[in-house]
Amino acid sequence: MNKRKIIAVSGSNGNDRNLDERILEKAERTGFLIAERGGILVCGGLGGVMEASARGAKKAGGITVGILPWKKEAANPYIDIPLATNLGFYRNTLIANCADCMIAICGRWGTLNEISMSVSINKPTVVITGTAGVSDILSGKDLLRKMRKKPLFVKTPEEAVEAAFSF
Amino acid sequence: MNKRKIIAVSGSNGNDRNLDERILEKAERTGFLIAERGGILVCGGLGGVMEASARGAKKAGGITVGILPWKKEAANPYIDIPLATNLGFYRNTLIANCADCMIAICGRWGTLNEISMSVSINKPTVVITGTAGVSDILSGKDLLRKMRKKPLFVKTPEEAVEAAFSF
Amino acid sequence: MNKRKIIAVSGSNGNDRNLDERILEKAERTGFLIAERGGILVCGGLGGVMEASARGAKKAGGITVGILPWKKEAANPYIDIPLATNLGFYRNTLIANCADCMIAICGRWGTLNEISMSVSINKPTVVITGTAGVSDILSGKDLLRKMRKKPLFVKTPEEAVEAAFSF
Amino acid sequence: MNKRKIIAVSGSNGNDRNLDERILEKAERTGFLIAERGGILVCGGLGGVMEASARGAKKAGGITVGILPWKKEAANPYIDIPLATNLGFYRNTLIANCADCMIAICGRWGTLNEISMSVSINKPTVVITGTAGVSDILSGKDLLRKMRKKPLFVKTPEEAVEAAFSF
Repeated sequence: MNKRKIIAVSGSNGNDRNLDERILEKAERTGFLIAERGGILVCGGLGGVMEASARGAKKAGGITVGILPWKKEAANPYIDIPLATNLGFYRNTLIANCADCMIAICGRWGTLNEISMSVSINKPTVVITGTAGVSDILSGKDLLRKMRKKPLFVKTPEEAVEAAFSF
Repeated sequence: MNKRKIIAVSGSNGNDRNLDERILEKAERTGFLIAERGGILVCGGLGGVMEASARGAKKAGGITVGILPWKKEAANPYIDIPLATNLGFYRNTLIANCADCMIAICGRWGTLNEISMSVSINKPTVVITGTAGVSDILSGKDLLRKMRKKPLFVKTPEEAVEAAFSF
Repeated sequence: MNKRKIIAVSGSNGNDRNLDERILEKAERTGFLIAERGGILVCGGLGGVMEASARGAKKAGGITVGILPWKKEAANPYIDIPLATNLGFYRNTLIANCADCMIAICGRWGTLNEISMSVSINKPTVVITGTAGVSDILSGKDLLRKMRKKPLFVKTPEEAVEAAFSF
Repeated sequence: MNKRKIIAVSGSNGNDRNLDERILEKAERTGFLIAERGGILVCGGLGGVMEASARGAKKAGGITVGILPWKKEAANPYIDIPLATNLGFYRNTLIANCADCMIAICGRWGTLNEISMSVSINKPTVVITGTAGVSDILSGKDLLRKMRKKPLFVKTPEEAVEAAFSF
């Protein structure tokens, strides 16, 4: 069996006004580190965090898979394997299922959908805080104290990828 | 075309320790009111909030549909139409898609998954606060202030069902 | 648990030129007999065989569920519970999974997709011959002799429904 | 956008007694030719035709994607990217959707399910005859004469791959 880890990066599409260069750099750095360690990057294949992380993975010579909601043509230019699922938003659940671990950056309701699925099915789930959006909302002080299962909150791409490969 | 509204009730399964009689009564009341107004109740078909809401709907003579993850045999006794999807957790997304509106009560990561899908696809989504779990977490003061799309937070089954039928 | 059998009727949409009044009467008769015996009719919710079978079920006072590919508005007028899956053609597989038994009438590639799924997952699958389309193609003399698993071929709605309830 | 063609190979799992060395060689040859022309091979990731075609693609230095029904561990050793969908048999439909073209070899009901989906959604679909199973059944003289849409029947891997890249 193939031993390479499959790591999903979940996060905002390019039209999220919360995104800025600093956040996208973290996404790119995350993708770079995943690929550098031999991981296969899986993401939703579109813009924003998905594109930045895929760009990072390609800079490190990695392989990138885009699990697209509809057409292949919507894939960002850094996706090696654009899979046109025709599953629409159901593809969020597919991303969570086919990854060994998920790393979330920024994000809105779609990212929350992916994080919640990933935690539901007991996949290791890492959230990079300081990236705005649902990633910061979920990390609010004691917000999840009553939840038995929780994502891991980390502050940097380095910590996120280190955690992803240590599970 | 069939004009009856299809209302999803999303919430914890029976093994959630957050559930108590008071919350289950709210779930039952919600199901009752949905059916009383002629709505079709859709839920995940299992225990806890799902069972209580289906029981309520049957007390009002309504129709209940259970979108089950796996086997039909897992349906609670108040489900008229147990649909064994074999979709596992993907069925959360199916519940959000096939309903005209979603009402959430209590809940954990699975319920958060359904709420986030429902909001993502622009379905009217109502959360009953004071029911513990993710329903109370999401309603935290100003928590979602930076999210453009939000569920509607209400305090009672009456308000929830009134809202569900007014969209 | 709900003890009513869920029977899927699979067959051509209304634009199939193979369909004629005689075939649609068989579909209607099939739906009628399913409902008369207390079964819940599940189908794809659209026109042609789906509509005729749902009309038959309603004439017998039964319950009809339409597993629609996209919008609820596309449901035929005889569907009590129109479920807008947004699964597109994946909904064929959902129909096969959620039924206890499938009955096929006429049909093209979509029906063949449903029949083949139903047989794949070991659901009892009945094909009414003499209804043109893939139902007649599959029943060709000895065509499936080398297949270990086969649908049951019958000549009338009465035989089909009798078989569906005897599994 | 990524310009590499994604070609699905659909066919029997390893426990199909119809499979013999000659058929598996055709599957391997098909995978080899797909990769040689720069295509990405997608398949169901398991044994038999899936494994042989993936082995062929790897011999030509290609990339192979396995769309697995459940666990990643079930992937054959020639799969670079094993995607554990947890979609069970729904993954057949995913394979048809994410490929630009499908090539079928031998096969039973699952392969027929994939062929029928591929034709339903108007994907170019090529069946290699002389490989037993449903591939030979469908190619029977005049069997599909009344079907408006048909797969293309060819006799060799060379013709199949030539056709797949010419659509």
